[in-house]
Amino acid sequence: MKKLILDLDMGVDDAMALAYALASPEVELIGITTVFGNVPCAQSVENCLAMLELLGHPEVPVVAGADRALAATAPYTTMVDVHGTNGLGGVALPEPTREAVGKSDAEGGAAVDFLLDAARTWGSDLIYVPTGPLTNLALAARRDAEALRAIGGIVFMGGALTIPGNVTPGAEANIANDPEAADAVLRSGVPVTMVGLDVTHQTILPFDELDCWRALGTPAGAAFADIVGYYFNFYLEHQGYLGGCALHDPLAVAIALDPTLAGTLDINLKVDLDGPFRGRTIGDPLRLHDPQKSAKVAVTVDAPRFVERFCERVRQALG
Amino acid sequence: MKKLILDLDMGVDDAMALAYALASPEVELIGITTVFGNVPCAQSVENCLAMLELLGHPEVPVVAGADRALAATAPYTTMVDVHGTNGLGGVALPEPTREAVGKSDAEGGAAVDFLLDAARTWGSDLIYVPTGPLTNLALAARRDAEALRAIGGIVFMGGALTIPGNVTPGAEANIANDPEAADAVLRSGVPVTMVGLDVTHQTILPFDELDCWRALGTPAGAAFADIVGYYFNFYLEHQGYLGGCALHDPLAVAIALDPTLAGTLDINLKVDLDGPFRGRTIGDPLRLHDPQKSAKVAVTVDAPRFVERFCERVRQALG
Repeated sequence: MKKLILDLDMGVDDAMALAYALASPEVELIGITTVFGNVPCAQSVENCLAMLELLGHPEVPVVAGADRALAATAPYTTMVDVHGTNGLGGVALPEPTREAVGKSDAEGGAAVDFLLDAARTWGSDLIYVPTGPLTNLALAARRDAEALRAIGGIVFMGGALTIPGNVTPGAEANIANDPEAADAVLRSGVPVTMVGLDVTHQTILPFDELDCWRALGTPAGAAFADIVGYYFNFYLEHQGYLGGCALHDPLAVAIALDPTLAGTLDINLKVDLDGPFRGRTIGDPLRLHDPQKSAKVAVTVDAPRFVERFCERVRQALG
Repeated sequence: MKKLILDLDMGVDDAMALAYALASPEVELIGITTVFGNVPCAQSVENCLAMLELLGHPEVPVVAGADRALAATAPYTTMVDVHGTNGLGGVALPEPTREAVGKSDAEGGAAVDFLLDAARTWGSDLIYVPTGPLTNLALAARRDAEALRAIGGIVFMGGALTIPGNVTPGAEANIANDPEAADAVLRSGVPVTMVGLDVTHQTILPFDELDCWRALGTPAGAAFADIVGYYFNFYLEHQGYLGGCALHDPLAVAIALDPTLAGTLDINLKVDLDGPFRGRTIGDPLRLHDPQKSAKVAVTVDAPRFVERFCERVRQALG
């Protein structure tokens, strides 16, 4: 069976991605590495531990990772409205009963070692899905890009190629939080699949799914209905035209496990680092003629098939 | 046989596009409409008349079109380095012996009527290829979008979706010259194929092709070698990494005549009109969920097949 590592800045859609992964029979979740982003890294660690207990999987290790962007001199502290004060819509989960592996820091904490060890152990059987800034991956690629080239797949949620960003007209939030890391990854030659706003804004969870979760009558169902309810309200207020909330992080997991869900464009990407375009993912003109393309960008998605599978698996995870 | 109208801001690559079209057996060139862009519209008219005589096709009507952008209050006057003082690398062609149809003006001169008349006459047998700003097309769509919806194809050279622009990091030159026109066209629902820098920067004319043209021993071969030689020097100086000059406008004609040359992405596009992103072609988030997509964007191209066909046809046109 394939092995999966999720790299999470545990906010609302990270929680849905985790539930989706735990209910996916194709794969075994062997660990979660954490990063700053939707929340500071220390909060992501706490949220991951609590969420794994809520979902009945306290055996999965949570590994502390990078607490700041490559170019930052202090840990990331700002939180965003989208995910609530604690990153989980302000919903208090029971205190976790165990600790994470390692401590978060500027060097990627214990996450870089965990990822590289797994890469060497599992090789092509390993799938790695970062759904926050690509800081841990950039740090790992700096240490051993060869080991990463040999794994079965790296599928990240982030970026926007064919539609505007959600932080600026150019930048999507995960890339905006560490443009230097994303640029380093994309120029490293390590093969990646980008699941960006191009497709995640096409996969919308309808508002009434939360009623199904609540009707499960489980603590997890009730908690997820509250957590995602918070997220829904943000979408209603700011992007009401979408008709629900975008399933950003879960879609990256789903495409990692089943690439047939997306149509992809092979391209060599870079990230703009300067001026108003800072944080934009865009084709690298200097590598346009290179027949080797290191990125596959998801530009189309079978949204109905994914959303149906999402609802099925997440209900199962919460049941 | 299919009928073709080219809409040209006659600069260097427009001349190559014209030569390509004249040597294409699949299609009959029934007229050229003109627009400002690489050169002012009046210069484009002169260049088109002279170029048609050079290439032995004085029967093709040249129709004067828009002399300024939709939002502009005065005719376009600036010339760019890329195409030389007269738009044809500074190469003086013999004075044309005839006149254009109509006069260029802010309302699209006689070009809008010419295009709409042809659309009504030829319907699905008509192909329209604008290789400059989309001003004439926007003015025509404003008058009769239905007639344009019924034609066989509109394939424009312009824009950049997956790589940076060539005027700003967001904007390609044709779109930058009239963002409001391009935006109006793309939001009009009229089906278009966009052939932008994404693919034109992949189709490169090698430097030694000019020797073949010169060796033809014809006035047209000699003139084209000089004209395109000027263009080559610009590319050598500014974009030497491309290894030749980009075949922007000819590629749009080629894809219009043979869509199998390109791989396309179906998408609803808009143009950013404000701030540093002004002139960027990008997916329209508000029409992301609309199952009807009005644009096909060429994102991949069979460059070797196109360049070979280009060399073959242009040699024939110049022979």
